Parts: sequence; C-alpha cells; structure tokens
Amino acid sequence: MEKRISGHTGLMGLFGTPVGHSGSPAMYNFSFEKDGLDYAYLAFDVKEEEMEKAFETIRLLKMRGGNFTMPCKNVAARLVDRLSDAAKIIGACNTFVQEDGVITGHITDGVGFVRNLQNHGCQVAGKKTVVLGAGGAATAIQVQFALEKVKEIKIFEIEGKFFERALETKKKLEETCPDCVVTVEKTEEKEKLEKAVRECDILVNATIIGMKPREDETLVDASWLDPKTVVADTVYNPEMTRLLKEAEAVGCTVVSGKGMLLQQGAVNYELFVGKEMPLEEFVKFQKEQSK
Amino acid sequence: MEKRISGHTGLMGLFGTPVGHSGSPAMYNFSFEKDGLDYAYLAFDVKEEEMEKAFETIRLLKMRGGNFTMPCKNVAARLVDRLSDAAKIIGACNTFVQEDGVITGHITDGVGFVRNLQNHGCQVAGKKTVVLGAGGAATAIQVQFALEKVKEIKIFEIEGKFFERALETKKKLEETCPDCVVTVEKTEEKEKLEKAVRECDILVNATIIGMKPREDETLVDASWLDPKTVVADTVYNPEMTRLLKEAEAVGCTVVSGKGMLLQQGAVNYELFVGKEMPLEEFVKFQKEQSK
Repeated sequence: MEKRISGHTGLMGLFGTPVGHSGSPAMYNFSFEKDGLDYAYLAFDVKEEEMEKAFETIRLLKMRGGNFTMPCKNVAARLVDRLSDAAKIIGACNTFVQEDGVITGHITDGVGFVRNLQNHGCQVAGKKTVVLGAGGAATAIQVQFALEKVKEIKIFEIEGKFFERALETKKKLEETCPDCVVTVEKTEEKEKLEKAVRECDILVNATIIGMKPREDETLVDASWLDPKTVVADTVYNPEMTRLLKEAEAVGCTVVSGKGMLLQQGAVNYELFVGKEMPLEEFVKFQKEQSK
Repeated sequence: MEKRISGHTGLMGLFGTPVGHSGSPAMYNFSFEKDGLDYAYLAFDVKEEEMEKAFETIRLLKMRGGNFTMPCKNVAARLVDRLSDAAKIIGACNTFVQEDGVITGHITDGVGFVRNLQNHGCQVAGKKTVVLGAGGAATAIQVQFALEKVKEIKIFEIEGKFFERALETKKKLEETCPDCVVTVEKTEEKEKLEKAVRECDILVNATIIGMKPREDETLVDASWLDPKTVVADTVYNPEMTRLLKEAEAVGCTVVSGKGMLLQQGAVNYELFVGKEMPLEEFVKFQKEQSK
C-alpha cells in the first residue's frame, strides 16, 4: 500500500448507496496491484440527487473509470456523454470509462452473465431462452441475449410493478433487434411456463426466488427440466439455489450467480484498463482471506 | 493494499498543480496503514479556477481532510467554512479538515516550523527573531511566531514584489498580535541586517537563497553570528545550506528545512485523525526505500 499510492495514482470508484459492503474495491485494487497499474478504487456513498455533482467529481478528478450501483444507474445513463448499445436500450449504466474527457456509460451485468455461460461451454447465439424476471439484472440479461443474437426470449414475470417493464423491454428489443422473438407471459400461468421451460435451451432465473431467506423456493418444477437444458441463476446466496440443485440432479449444466458477478468485474476491468483481470489469482486470494 | 482499501475506506487528498511529485500520498498512506486507519490519500491535479468544484467534491465524497498546494492556497481560504487563526491572518490555507459537513482551513507551514525548532530545544516565546523573506513560507512563519508570542520579528526582504507583502504582514500582526514588535527592512541595507542578526536569538532564512542551484549563496555574513543564536533554514535541498554550514562552524544550533516539512506533515496528520504520526517509522521506511 504505502509503496503503491503516489502523487501520480489515478482514482477510480463506485457511486451509489449503500456501498460500504461492496466487494469491488477489494477486487479491483487487488488486480491493479497484481498488474502493476497505478490506480486506486474506492466506494463513495452518493444519493441519486447527488449524481450531477458526482459527474463533476468524475470530470474534475479525471477518474479513468468506475461503477454505478443502486439507486444511481438510471440517472447515470442520463449524465454520461455516450452510451453503449445495451445501456442505450436499457436506459441504465453500471460502469463508466472516461477517455479524453468523454464519459461513456456501459451496462455489463448482461455481458458478464453471457461470458459466464460461455465459460461453462454454453454459446447463446441461435438459442431458445426463458428468462424469469423483469428487474434490473433480468432486463440486462434479456437485452444482452438479444444483442448476442439468441433466437427467442420468453420472459416470465408475476403480475405487478415489473410486468410493465417486461413489456417495455419486449417493445425496445423488437425495435432494436428485430430478428429476436420476444414474448412476455405471467409467471402465474403455469402451463405456459412449463411449455416454455420444456422447449428452451437456456433457462435463467433472474428473480429473487431461491435467494436467502427464500432459499426453499423455486419457480420451476424439476420434472419440466431436460438434461440438455443449461440452467443459470443470478442468485449467488446461496451459491447453489434449489433450482440449480434440482437441475443438477436431472443432469443439466448449471451456472450459479457468483460467476456472473466475477465475470462482470472482469468485463469492467477490461473496459477500465484494456487488459484481462487476474481473476483466478483474485479468487484464490479471496479464499485465503476467508480462511 | 488489497487488504486495506474496502467499501468503507475514506478518501483524503491533495489539490493543486502540479502534484504528481508530491511525497504526501506516500507519507500519509504509510501512516494510515501503520496506525490501522481506514483512509487512502491521493493527489489531484486541480487548477485555481477549478477549486469551487474541488470543494463540491470534498463535500460530496465526505473527505475527512486533505491539503491544498500552489496555486490553490489562497482561493481555498475563501471557500472553506471556517479558518484557523493563522489562516485567517494569512488569507491562505494548506490543510483542511471536514467535521459534520463543516470544512475548516488551517495553515500549518508555520506550526510545523515552530515545532521543528522545539524539537531542536528552541522555544520561541519571548525571543527576538529575524526572518529573511516575505513569500508564502516566510509569511506563515512570521504569523506563527507572532501567535506564539515571540518578542520581536525583524523582516528583511529585497526590494520587489514581496516587499509590499512584508508591510501587509506587519500591519496585520500589529492589529492581531499587538504585543509583538514587527519591523520591515530592505535586505539590501546590510548595516541594519548585520545589527539585527547580531542582536537576535533566532535567525530564519525563508528565501530561496541557498537552494539549488544557488547553493553557494547566503544573505548573512558568518562573522555576524553568535554561537547562542539558533539558525534555521526553510531550504531543504541541500539539507545543509551554506548558511547552516557556516553557522554550525561558529557553534550555533542549526535547523534545516527538511524537519519542517516532516513536522508539518505530522501536524496535518494530527488534524486529520487526532493522533501522532508515526514519523520515525516513516523516516526509516523512506531511507530503506531510497537504498
């Protein structure tokens, strides 16, 4: 530490609230040090209404990059100078990069998710997918699936505040990715859900069902699952959700939410510094720390 | 490093330009780590006209403390919420502390200088002093001398742009510290300078005479020096100026500019975190690094 930060060290950081629990500073600082890159990454507790000032800070301190988390992702998308394709469709960004004073906003949840699938041998182009949920992570995955040319996305969402958002995503994707067939159904319609799950290549749970304290729940009946289906969850606590355990018992390839988080970090790191994150070393380091 | 910065780590920093060469990040980060304090200190290249934004950043990021350097010290004094006594008289600040959203500006050059004298066994109260120079460091020392109740301060400055400043300092000190006798003379008047040097208890060079590349120069004839006089220099490159070497040969206690810098850092550290800086450990660490 005392050898690393000098008068030349550049600042990066996370904006949002709360942020104190975030693992991002540990992950990025570990990687900067490992790669000999002269940056330090801190977390800043910032409210939505303070985001204009946060952008002045990003410009003043010439921050090379950083992240936005809840509840600041949407307002961030209005304050950046440019947006990536996915961020434009979603209207939110979780990552920024500043180059010659121009701030570009990215949304990397979906990219990290897809990369994590690829790491499990699952290519998404041309595939039939079912995505449960219509919140932030679900939307990011749906948009990234469309951008990566999946054949179809069947969105299921319970009746409620996010259902409208699912319909909006469908509309936006029909405009921007017309080759991808998007449908939206209510999760309550069990027959439609069963049929969709039985026919899909990739099933994604992007709801909070299965997350502590709801770890006993699942939206999918294990009898619907085919061993050839790849089953992924965005939930990472527990790492193996009830859905993943049952899918594994059936013989499916299962992909947990934890890898998505790490891959998202790796995607961000590449945007920040243009090189691969030392992910394996970091995971190893984390394990040693938690001993 | 990777173990130290987390989502809870608070930011401190230096504002000014240029700042890349600054040793402050190394010194404070070393001390934070040594003391187990959860802060990181970075340097930010900020111009005078960007200082209003810098203050918004200080407030937004809830920076606990930090420093201002050239050319931002004067504008900083106008932007803080409160000023220390010395900073109020001088109209500049090099250090800030934020407490419950209130930013107080301090000027610690003089405090560091006086503390360094004390560390060499030299108390200033009641003493007759001569201070050569009327720039930023000189003014800070003159004001601190007055606040610490020296008996008299004889300021010598060459005819030029800083002479007016010396007269202003005299005027301000007459208003704020009426018990301290302040005179201002031209350095060119060698007889007055000789008399003042012969009569003083503490002689301070706060000009650039003696600093590389002018290391062969001195404003004071060695024959004027009395062994009982304490002779201090603000120049720290070289550490032993011609003035100090000649004074040492006469038998004076000599005090170099390097200790002033370190003591100033220690004073700042106490303002930031309310405890003594691990100065000896840092000096030892620095020596090891430079091997």
